[in-house]
Amino acid sequence: MGGKRKKTWRRRVFEILEVADAGDRASQIFDISLLVLILANLVVITLETVEGLTTQYRTYFEVCETVSITIFTIEYLLRIWSCTAAPDFQHPVLGRLKFLFTPLALIDLMALAPFYLPLLIPIDIRFIRFVRLLRVLRLFKLSRYFQSFQVLGNILKSKRDELLVTLMGVFGLLWLASTMMYFIEHDAQPEAFANIPATMWWGVATLTTVGYGDIYPVTTAGRVLGSVISILGIGLFALPTGILASGFTEELDRRKQLPSPEPSTCPHCGKPL
Amino acid sequence: MGGKRKKTWRRRVFEILEVADAGDRASQIFDISLLVLILANLVVITLETVEGLTTQYRTYFEVCETVSITIFTIEYLLRIWSCTAAPDFQHPVLGRLKFLFTPLALIDLMALAPFYLPLLIPIDIRFIRFVRLLRVLRLFKLSRYFQSFQVLGNILKSKRDELLVTLMGVFGLLWLASTMMYFIEHDAQPEAFANIPATMWWGVATLTTVGYGDIYPVTTAGRVLGSVISILGIGLFALPTGILASGFTEELDRRKQLPSPEPSTCPHCGKPL
Amino acid sequence: MGGKRKKTWRRRVFEILEVADAGDRASQIFDISLLVLILANLVVITLETVEGLTTQYRTYFEVCETVSITIFTIEYLLRIWSCTAAPDFQHPVLGRLKFLFTPLALIDLMALAPFYLPLLIPIDIRFIRFVRLLRVLRLFKLSRYFQSFQVLGNILKSKRDELLVTLMGVFGLLWLASTMMYFIEHDAQPEAFANIPATMWWGVATLTTVGYGDIYPVTTAGRVLGSVISILGIGLFALPTGILASGFTEELDRRKQLPSPEPSTCPHCGKPL
Amino acid sequence: MGGKRKKTWRRRVFEILEVADAGDRASQIFDISLLVLILANLVVITLETVEGLTTQYRTYFEVCETVSITIFTIEYLLRIWSCTAAPDFQHPVLGRLKFLFTPLALIDLMALAPFYLPLLIPIDIRFIRFVRLLRVLRLFKLSRYFQSFQVLGNILKSKRDELLVTLMGVFGLLWLASTMMYFIEHDAQPEAFANIPATMWWGVATLTTVGYGDIYPVTTAGRVLGSVISILGIGLFALPTGILASGFTEELDRRKQLPSPEPSTCPHCGKPL
Repeated sequence: MGGKRKKTWRRRVFEILEVADAGDRASQIFDISLLVLILANLVVITLETVEGLTTQYRTYFEVCETVSITIFTIEYLLRIWSCTAAPDFQHPVLGRLKFLFTPLALIDLMALAPFYLPLLIPIDIRFIRFVRLLRVLRLFKLSRYFQSFQVLGNILKSKRDELLVTLMGVFGLLWLASTMMYFIEHDAQPEAFANIPATMWWGVATLTTVGYGDIYPVTTAGRVLGSVISILGIGLFALPTGILASGFTEELDRRKQLPSPEPSTCPHCGKPL
Repeated sequence: MGGKRKKTWRRRVFEILEVADAGDRASQIFDISLLVLILANLVVITLETVEGLTTQYRTYFEVCETVSITIFTIEYLLRIWSCTAAPDFQHPVLGRLKFLFTPLALIDLMALAPFYLPLLIPIDIRFIRFVRLLRVLRLFKLSRYFQSFQVLGNILKSKRDELLVTLMGVFGLLWLASTMMYFIEHDAQPEAFANIPATMWWGVATLTTVGYGDIYPVTTAGRVLGSVISILGIGLFALPTGILASGFTEELDRRKQLPSPEPSTCPHCGKPL
Repeated sequence: MGGKRKKTWRRRVFEILEVADAGDRASQIFDISLLVLILANLVVITLETVEGLTTQYRTYFEVCETVSITIFTIEYLLRIWSCTAAPDFQHPVLGRLKFLFTPLALIDLMALAPFYLPLLIPIDIRFIRFVRLLRVLRLFKLSRYFQSFQVLGNILKSKRDELLVTLMGVFGLLWLASTMMYFIEHDAQPEAFANIPATMWWGVATLTTVGYGDIYPVTTAGRVLGSVISILGIGLFALPTGILASGFTEELDRRKQLPSPEPSTCPHCGKPL
Repeated sequence: MGGKRKKTWRRRVFEILEVADAGDRASQIFDISLLVLILANLVVITLETVEGLTTQYRTYFEVCETVSITIFTIEYLLRIWSCTAAPDFQHPVLGRLKFLFTPLALIDLMALAPFYLPLLIPIDIRFIRFVRLLRVLRLFKLSRYFQSFQVLGNILKSKRDELLVTLMGVFGLLWLASTMMYFIEHDAQPEAFANIPATMWWGVATLTTVGYGDIYPVTTAGRVLGSVISILGIGLFALPTGILASGFTEELDRRKQLPSPEPSTCPHCGKPL
């Protein structure tokens, strides 16, 4: 009896923690509360860095952090406890272990790291900033609720090969352009074009067309090379953009479950093609 | 009899106020006159800000404003009076109320606001500039006459979901990039990268590839992060552009009412293909 | 007899002046000579402006100009004389008059203007530079020989409506963005954002993503507005680019005379669809 | 017998030198070793230019260079010796001569040039840097192993005509824009817009939207011209990018050997659709 009641409880907790089905009020309220809490976290991370605000609202920021950590910890533990309600993670030990390594569970864990890491292991003062930086990962807790993140993830997965091929080309061109520019421009501007890695900063700014203007060729040879590279190379750097765009279109089409544009049966004998 | 004549008048006024049918000379003349007046308004708003011109042509500018307000007011009142001639707004009270909240009627109202608002409610001197700024909304009075505005409106409507999904991704990436860059670059450039909101200005300039050059990373770690973000992130920021472009193509195709590119039946034997 | 021989001569001159048919050696030699002369003209126009070269090679430049004018004049007169050999311009007077107003003939005339204009009418010293600038139009004499120019011309013709619609949107957005930015930023930077036309220079640099960095918002409100305009507006400015690209693809497809992807006959009764 | 054994050896050496078939361990190990060596070369070329590292690791860099030259030389000679195992290069003299002029063999030769050239012919001290620059060509030795290079090569081949047509337009516009801008802006900024070639640097930076900000118009006429050129011309400069992108899509489709999207016959009744 007790076992059964616990099982039912666990299933209910599981349902509430998961993204709500239409009509499940408790789960909807939980989702919205957690969403608000995550967004509040992102706002706090952002505003904490504004000098005037830190001194004035320090207490609020600290309260928000403590509340968040408490709720995120409880949420994480409840997820581990209740995950066995899902068919994929039924085994009490192995299922939970498997659950711990799902992307969403890892994101939840990393969102807690900035608080628990310094408590568990002594952290060098120099790494404190890096540990605090880990809090930005709380952004990805949103991926449970917004399809933008899932769409992006799916695109990166389905277009992985194309992206790798183009990124190889992008890095090859970047290296080639920067190396040639270094040899041409180094004498004229020994500081800005100090070495090839430094010249790559020019390469990135040019080939992405950002063009901050902190570094640019001044010699005639350098400008000719820079012009040729710009005109011919920008197309290569735009390839990942194009791949992403076509992946996005395909992914949205898939989500809309568009009927196949081709007829699925032969118009004469009526049999499937 | 009097009622009937009034009704006919009202219908005629309505026809003249609406975009002209081919052959309706009076309506065409009204359309062109109003178009010229609106464009004159935009020119005046623009030239008023040029110092030399303001002192020299102040009188002309003021005359133009007074004439515009008078005509726009009469136009607005006539539209409300005559709108009952349209099937959608037949009811003398409810129809007119419904008409008042159509987008075009709201635009017409807002175009009058900069003149009437200060007369109706006492306005703080600090808001005078904002009220004057409202005059730019007169631009949208053009939307009655140029299909560009309608095309854009339709695209935004038909692609709303896609744009929202990508804008979520855009803002997510912008926040993530700026937060990481702030943590890396703040110590080296405490003024330019003063806080995360300020760093977002760098993020926008970089990811849109505008790259003014007023703010850019100078540390090695910052430049590596900036390069990776540029190469990978620009594609994400280009997604709204791509959506707009494909929406535009679809919208123009719709307007051309292209016959379906594949005839569904053979014109000779009548059988479906 | 004399009339007939003259007619044959005229036809032959016409053939030589026109773009050569395969196998017509004399015409090919003429085409290549004229092409080289035009390109030499462009090189001279370019190099004349380089200070060191002008003093050193002044004589060569002047010789080139005189030779060019002579040849271009003879070419122009021969074209007018021989054009009656073409079916479209057969009438000795009306045909030639019609020919004079063809785009290519107008280009040929304008290429001569910088030399003959100052001889025909007294030209103010201030306009000398403008008249010299007209020499750049000799570039378009190349359009007879390179399909790039014809392709571009055809695209602009076939996509005129789409380009006009988007350019209206582009200018509307540019005006709106610049006007709002002026009202927000003028107080903080009264010199850079001096008036709305000046602010439009910022608008163009931002919305085209060129971003020279000579003018950019510094206030928080200005940066927020600038960010929103960048993220949302760049897509609008990219529309003409997309139209040009799709027009280019269509035009090249047309030139390749690709067989229509649809079958042109009904597969059952064999009759044309 | 000896001849036959040698022949078998030669075939085996050929197999090992070529990109490995699945299952050929020796060939795989050779491929990976050479790949690592090439990448190490690129890293050394890059890091050599960093001042701190050169003094510290000079010996390592020199060892790497010597080892690379030795291995690349042996590889090159073995390739020439064994190439007769391939059907295309069977003839002991003519086949090898033909092989020497294949793109990959030329790349291998040029990768050796920076070492052997100064030994063979006395090289002016001024050209030493240029000869060292030739080492960057070792990058292309990677093209044997990465399909990115082959994909790019194929795209450039299949889209050659389109790219030439657009590049002609690109250079025409660049020249026209720069020449006009020079005539307008030269008086106001005699240094930045010193002559037409110098103004072309502005043209490239603007039309590619890089916009470093080292040179931009300041006069009203120059800014108006610059705005018009930006808005209208960027589309032309984006055409090569679009061609590259569509070529990339087509090339990847070809590699995937996608079945024709429309079956041409019904699989059941066999009649053409």
